[in-house]
Amino acid sequence: MNTIMTLGEKAKQAEVIMRSMPTDKKNQALCCIADALLAHSDEILAANAIDLEDAVKAGMAPGLQDRLRLTQARLEDIAEGMRQVAALPDPIGEVMDSWTLDSGIDIRRVRVPMGVIGIIYESRPNVTPDAFSLCFKSGNVSFLRGGSDCIHSNIAMVQVMRQTLQQMDINPDVLILLEDTSRETVKEMMRANAYIDVLIPRGGAGLIKSVVETSTIPVIETGTGNCHIFVDESADIQMALDIITNAKTQRVGVCNAAESLLVHRNIADAFLPALAERLGEQVELRGDEIACGIAPVMKRATEEDWGTEYLDYILSVKIVDSVDEAIKHTNRYHTGHSDAIITSTNENADRFLNEIDSACVYANASTRFTDGFMFGFGAEIGISTQKLHARGPMGLKELTSYKYQLRGNGQVRK
Amino acid sequence: MNTIMTLGEKAKQAEVIMRSMPTDKKNQALCCIADALLAHSDEILAANAIDLEDAVKAGMAPGLQDRLRLTQARLEDIAEGMRQVAALPDPIGEVMDSWTLDSGIDIRRVRVPMGVIGIIYESRPNVTPDAFSLCFKSGNVSFLRGGSDCIHSNIAMVQVMRQTLQQMDINPDVLILLEDTSRETVKEMMRANAYIDVLIPRGGAGLIKSVVETSTIPVIETGTGNCHIFVDESADIQMALDIITNAKTQRVGVCNAAESLLVHRNIADAFLPALAERLGEQVELRGDEIACGIAPVMKRATEEDWGTEYLDYILSVKIVDSVDEAIKHTNRYHTGHSDAIITSTNENADRFLNEIDSACVYANASTRFTDGFMFGFGAEIGISTQKLHARGPMGLKELTSYKYQLRGNGQVRK
Repeated sequence: MNTIMTLGEKAKQAEVIMRSMPTDKKNQALCCIADALLAHSDEILAANAIDLEDAVKAGMAPGLQDRLRLTQARLEDIAEGMRQVAALPDPIGEVMDSWTLDSGIDIRRVRVPMGVIGIIYESRPNVTPDAFSLCFKSGNVSFLRGGSDCIHSNIAMVQVMRQTLQQMDINPDVLILLEDTSRETVKEMMRANAYIDVLIPRGGAGLIKSVVETSTIPVIETGTGNCHIFVDESADIQMALDIITNAKTQRVGVCNAAESLLVHRNIADAFLPALAERLGEQVELRGDEIACGIAPVMKRATEEDWGTEYLDYILSVKIVDSVDEAIKHTNRYHTGHSDAIITSTNENADRFLNEIDSACVYANASTRFTDGFMFGFGAEIGISTQKLHARGPMGLKELTSYKYQLRGNGQVRK
Repeated sequence: MNTIMTLGEKAKQAEVIMRSMPTDKKNQALCCIADALLAHSDEILAANAIDLEDAVKAGMAPGLQDRLRLTQARLEDIAEGMRQVAALPDPIGEVMDSWTLDSGIDIRRVRVPMGVIGIIYESRPNVTPDAFSLCFKSGNVSFLRGGSDCIHSNIAMVQVMRQTLQQMDINPDVLILLEDTSRETVKEMMRANAYIDVLIPRGGAGLIKSVVETSTIPVIETGTGNCHIFVDESADIQMALDIITNAKTQRVGVCNAAESLLVHRNIADAFLPALAERLGEQVELRGDEIACGIAPVMKRATEEDWGTEYLDYILSVKIVDSVDEAIKHTNRYHTGHSDAIITSTNENADRFLNEIDSACVYANASTRFTDGFMFGFGAEIGISTQKLHARGPMGLKELTSYKYQLRGNGQVRK
């Protein structure tokens, strides 16, 4: 048996105990693991130092080094996050529906774990405990493959976590880390349908594309966000400026930040100079021909700009003639993540909310609210930009499936 | 542009109008198409005759020829099915949840269409109108690829259906049929992520495996059923005989038929001779060593039998020592479709219902109830054996997704 088969068999064994693990035991385990990660912070930080040293030698960019770095404070955040997940309600066992069939059979649709969840991610070692805690609380086995850049950190953390599980008489194989980070092995993982029920890639567009193209296991795409904001002719200009400033600059490198602005032609003369004044120094504005005519501080946008998720202090600006054109343009260039309209008319708000094909559509609010915590889910494993299974912020419930339980007294089909 | 890109662009255009099509218009279109299929039955049956002639020339087995055959009566069934779908409630627009965020934003989770649904199937021409009607009612564009064996029938039906749509001022591209059934083109279809949101294969295990392995689009596996029945030591023998007879023989070639029987050792002496008497003439029983010792009429089963979906008058029989062993064996060899326990104790019923990892789990009823119509869904596009998105019988709701609509009055994230 190769690595993936060996680990896959272990994961499937462990899946059985997860299916019926009492809530208390899950919560207790998460709290003990949180404590253990802090108790062993010296070893974990020492392992992380090796990863960082390797990264420096390999010439990794400082921004990426920062993502890779663990500190005592970051470990405390990780532990606190794990305790918060322990405090969330357990989704497993919920009766989602129940009715009686014509034959008299009682039927219940019951929430159950997905099984084994594979997560493929890059050089953020915090994903390892974060993803585990969500999968574990929702009754799933975690099958993790982190980046080779943070392999020492991951091995150190997983060792502590598995030891703690074992001390609590829980099969430690509820947490599997793929230590062999070679391309061939990860490719095998993506085709291990017999062992992994769903695959969630977490990382940049390149990672996600590669997983979607290679995997034969069902994938949940967590996604890139080319978020659009449309300023309708009836918009309150002050509100529009506040929302755009928030959506663009409150945190610039995140998927729910605004990347493209559409402005109704009838409000452009009044709005664009105010926008340039408000954002002009901090944000590079790239406008189409008309926008640049009105606010010459803007650079000219190219076709490429409309489809670009900058993740930077850049915003593309296009003038449109109608809400129709705004909807059409948005549906063509966005990534189906989060889009907003600023308008004073209910009719245009409703049209935008109904006709924009995105996970989250806003009227008169910032796209930055697309977030599992903001939505009240208490946690988030990612934001899905696909329509199958889960769309938008994914919390614990989105990591579950369901089954039908039917109770009869001898019914047969006629 | 190649065929798939051309058709894909058309499908994506048509998707927009489907998203907001009024329920009345959808229902009216379905009823008109049902009428049109009957009005044009001569052309459709003539096209089907060509397919049948080709099939005979190619030496197709009589059973497969029967699947391929359309008759006036079958067309009437198809039309009636379409009218029934028209009569079902429209799932689109349902507010599934609503609450208010801390910031005061109103949030609603609203049911929306999936978008473009690709269906890949074999030589059953009835799938063409059946699948279209379910996709259409749930607001989706159908992108159909039927078997090359029934291409003339499919083209004839789709022509009638598209003409009717056009007469009603509906963009006929809400129904796309891939007329080029070559391997290369279907492979391209399975990788057309830009145009197709979900792929549902309908057919035998070989077709499904090939789609799962090739597709980069999310797939819903509709599945094979290696359904197990466990006769617990406390079972009512008469009830067990009735349920097993029904599950095995009421319709033998379907995915919810029983294929494997587990019998508790403590009831085997009483039960197996009765089973052999009840089923012995009609069904070939293949037992393990102990079962054959008790009822020598059985053939000996091999390891291969436990994992086989016979779809035939054959039943494998194994003796187990406990409900634990029954659960373990079932979870190892079943396909996660439908399994049943016959027992008089609530404790064992609950354990089986909770611990068997299947879409549908029964206590004291026949597995033959796993069916969208029996469940009260009014329709069925297939039975999912995967855990992502939909599990068990899939009706109209299972062909939908959701979006979050958020309404604020200027909220920004702090």
